[in-house]
Amino acid sequence: MSTATPRPFRVTVWNEGRHEQQNPEVAARYPEGIHGAVAGAVAEHLSGTAEVRTATLDEPEHGLTEDVLAATDVLTWWGNLAHREVSDEVVKRVHRRVLAGMGLVVLHSGHLSKIFTRLMGTTCTLRWRSGRDREVVWTVAPTHPVAAGVPHPFVIDEQEMYGEYFDIPVPDELVFLSSFSDGEVFRSGCAFRRGHGKIFYFSPGDQDYPVYHHPHVRHVIANAVRWAAPEADRSVPRLVHSESGWFERGGEQA
Amino acid sequence: MSTATPRPFRVTVWNEGRHEQQNPEVAARYPEGIHGAVAGAVAEHLSGTAEVRTATLDEPEHGLTEDVLAATDVLTWWGNLAHREVSDEVVKRVHRRVLAGMGLVVLHSGHLSKIFTRLMGTTCTLRWRSGRDREVVWTVAPTHPVAAGVPHPFVIDEQEMYGEYFDIPVPDELVFLSSFSDGEVFRSGCAFRRGHGKIFYFSPGDQDYPVYHHPHVRHVIANAVRWAAPEADRSVPRLVHSESGWFERGGEQA
Amino acid sequence: MSTATPRPFRVTVWNEGRHEQQNPEVAARYPEGIHGAVAGAVAEHLSGTAEVRTATLDEPEHGLTEDVLAATDVLTWWGNLAHREVSDEVVKRVHRRVLAGMGLVVLHSGHLSKIFTRLMGTTCTLRWRSGRDREVVWTVAPTHPVAAGVPHPFVIDEQEMYGEYFDIPVPDELVFLSSFSDGEVFRSGCAFRRGHGKIFYFSPGDQDYPVYHHPHVRHVIANAVRWAAPEADRSVPRLVHSESGWFERGGEQA
Amino acid sequence: MSTATPRPFRVTVWNEGRHEQQNPEVAARYPEGIHGAVAGAVAEHLSGTAEVRTATLDEPEHGLTEDVLAATDVLTWWGNLAHREVSDEVVKRVHRRVLAGMGLVVLHSGHLSKIFTRLMGTTCTLRWRSGRDREVVWTVAPTHPVAAGVPHPFVIDEQEMYGEYFDIPVPDELVFLSSFSDGEVFRSGCAFRRGHGKIFYFSPGDQDYPVYHHPHVRHVIANAVRWAAPEADRSVPRLVHSESGWFERGGEQA
Repeated sequence: MSTATPRPFRVTVWNEGRHEQQNPEVAARYPEGIHGAVAGAVAEHLSGTAEVRTATLDEPEHGLTEDVLAATDVLTWWGNLAHREVSDEVVKRVHRRVLAGMGLVVLHSGHLSKIFTRLMGTTCTLRWRSGRDREVVWTVAPTHPVAAGVPHPFVIDEQEMYGEYFDIPVPDELVFLSSFSDGEVFRSGCAFRRGHGKIFYFSPGDQDYPVYHHPHVRHVIANAVRWAAPEADRSVPRLVHSESGWFERGGEQA
Repeated sequence: MSTATPRPFRVTVWNEGRHEQQNPEVAARYPEGIHGAVAGAVAEHLSGTAEVRTATLDEPEHGLTEDVLAATDVLTWWGNLAHREVSDEVVKRVHRRVLAGMGLVVLHSGHLSKIFTRLMGTTCTLRWRSGRDREVVWTVAPTHPVAAGVPHPFVIDEQEMYGEYFDIPVPDELVFLSSFSDGEVFRSGCAFRRGHGKIFYFSPGDQDYPVYHHPHVRHVIANAVRWAAPEADRSVPRLVHSESGWFERGGEQA
Repeated sequence: MSTATPRPFRVTVWNEGRHEQQNPEVAARYPEGIHGAVAGAVAEHLSGTAEVRTATLDEPEHGLTEDVLAATDVLTWWGNLAHREVSDEVVKRVHRRVLAGMGLVVLHSGHLSKIFTRLMGTTCTLRWRSGRDREVVWTVAPTHPVAAGVPHPFVIDEQEMYGEYFDIPVPDELVFLSSFSDGEVFRSGCAFRRGHGKIFYFSPGDQDYPVYHHPHVRHVIANAVRWAAPEADRSVPRLVHSESGWFERGGEQA
Repeated sequence: MSTATPRPFRVTVWNEGRHEQQNPEVAARYPEGIHGAVAGAVAEHLSGTAEVRTATLDEPEHGLTEDVLAATDVLTWWGNLAHREVSDEVVKRVHRRVLAGMGLVVLHSGHLSKIFTRLMGTTCTLRWRSGRDREVVWTVAPTHPVAAGVPHPFVIDEQEMYGEYFDIPVPDELVFLSSFSDGEVFRSGCAFRRGHGKIFYFSPGDQDYPVYHHPHVRHVIANAVRWAAPEADRSVPRLVHSESGWFERGGEQA
């Protein structure tokens, strides 16, 4: 029921890409890389409205040049082994873009990435176990756009366990909770707003399990990308000196 | 940048309609009633995507029959003198519709309406003065859809003062703050989610001032209506008994 | 590390008390009634700082006269079979007391009580099963006073399952999450503020399981009672007319 | 009505201390430095329960050695001219202490300090004007401990204006709103939780106005210090690997 005039938005799917190089099983599981699987999920659900490209750690500037970011409405982020190899300069660049309105969707082990911890201000640590747990994902914000069309609950047969305590700021919107075979729980879908940007963290997904082929996981990722897309052009918030009466003389526009 | 396929949604603008009958100045200010002005604001901004009708207190069942509500995606509410005359039966009906997903936009003195206080659970009282204060409306959630396209700040030259303490639950999203000539402040734009429904309270607007002709006030009201529209058909949440293993046998769908 | 001068606060533990009358097994499990067990938990942990009394449905005015409520700093509420038998007059009285600052701790099946649903504005429905599930209770707000001294997690060997979707407003503070044997999750410890009152909902506890004898459940209930106690005398928020310049001439005091 | 056994907690009041050196008017206004005035406010209100010391930028390690921080329950922060001179090493140290439970009270121009922006993840920029505005401070969370005993509203006759948009994450608790002579508004009292630590930002206070001698400002600062004090010894949250069944074999304690 939206009245917005649809125009394509531009999605950049970023992946560290190391597991695929180092582990033949991961390469077999994700023949086009985890980035390929994620990009496919976005394209599958947002066909015609989103333009999707990918970028990886080993490209120059990790594929995230100023030009690429300037042409990106939403960035998705997957990393695990090599968070420390991401250059501080690129992290700073992405951080500023998010504050200026670029959406950011952080996936799974991206919780320990430099960009996510910088935006959150906390350690973003958690409890984990790679033990073939069954994960059940529950919606606790049924009207949130990221949950649209997703069954309540849905089951991932085998998955790495991520459990509480998850050291994040209280999410602006808590959308999904997960339980695991052994009894752990996790805030698995969390929305945040920072500066002019929207951020969604979604934990299901792992290199050792075929989670990015799971239809509902793919649907959530696409929903998150669409939700995180900015509605207007923005800049980074800045310090403003305002003389008395400024807004009655015309002032700032939104 | 939305990808939703636009389809028209149905808006019912409700008004008590008593000031217009009792006070020629109000009638002159709002020749089509406050409901006419509000309906015009919605139509002006959502032309082609919203179908707007009006209903008033003096109609049978206050114009809010089961049939009307079943064909309403978003209801706006204006009342002041006659909150007590609204029948408990109609309030109960509207309450259930909101929990089932109908959007509700509560305007100005509607803060003391039966439907708003029932949804909030508090007194919804506040401080007030009809003293020709200047109101300045500031956006504190710049990425919220209800603030889209609205200048930061905008000025209402003459307006009734509404000030803190406003006895509401902490809003799920605080979008606008207002200041008044004499120094009072007010949380003037507040978003809530209850059951499957979205609720927006917006305070600017009064029978004694031409506030519903103010272009930015009109824009906010239309934004709020669009934001509050449900994205899917819903029912009232209910108590569910679930046998062990229910969701692995198919379970509930969202 | 508090600097507050401790003075005893007054706790009224309310119980419907019907299961104990109708079911010998419940009577054997809770020989002093569920209210006796809850009152014991409060007394055990807040000895010397709290004065505890009990009240039940079958007493005149359900034991909740104006005098009793005027001498109550925190009320705890347990009911299940007979929510409808609670008089609307008493509910209205309790509601006003909460808005005036009386703490309220709602336990387990009290989620469907008239007083809780009135304060929340939603149906407060949920999913349930009495199937001897194991419940595991996790702390997601480690600095919250209600979680102080409570292990993370703690296990209840047998318990009724309460699962999502739980139709409440988003809690002001989400303190505990629970998982159940079969995979369900639940927001089992939720803090709300309404008017001048603090409300805590805590789900573990049932007539068919000895949960109110569980040491950590007892600890949480006592923590919740202490947290909900008001820090000052308050009244119900009210509509206030304020002339221009009122606060510079002395104004209102907190 | 707290039952906690009072024991003294240790407060370190930190100040950049440059205005006092460079500007005789500031030195005359705050003869013991801004840190002296803030320390006096804490001592005045928390006498007997808090031990207060001060530290400044020009001391070795800015007076914030590991030993000092290990003996600090709550740190207050004031800086303006020399944010960049604060060493990254000390900021990292303070950051880890906050995540481990040390309270942090950030005052006025400290909004642009390295430690606050690191904890928030945003620019923390705002609008400002040093124009002798009158500031009126309103309580919007009347039951919050930081507002205890503070008049609603209170007036600061002359003050620097701080106005929206203030680029912070949505506060976990919004306690105070301010208005200024010219119509600006500001979220002037904001509570955050990060890791195991509590953070309070309070904007009233400036080197060019005698705001730290204002009785209600002093009261709020002392309330904030008391509120931010940890209730238990904590460590920084960390990544934990947990084998299946860990918590049934004893597990972690809170």
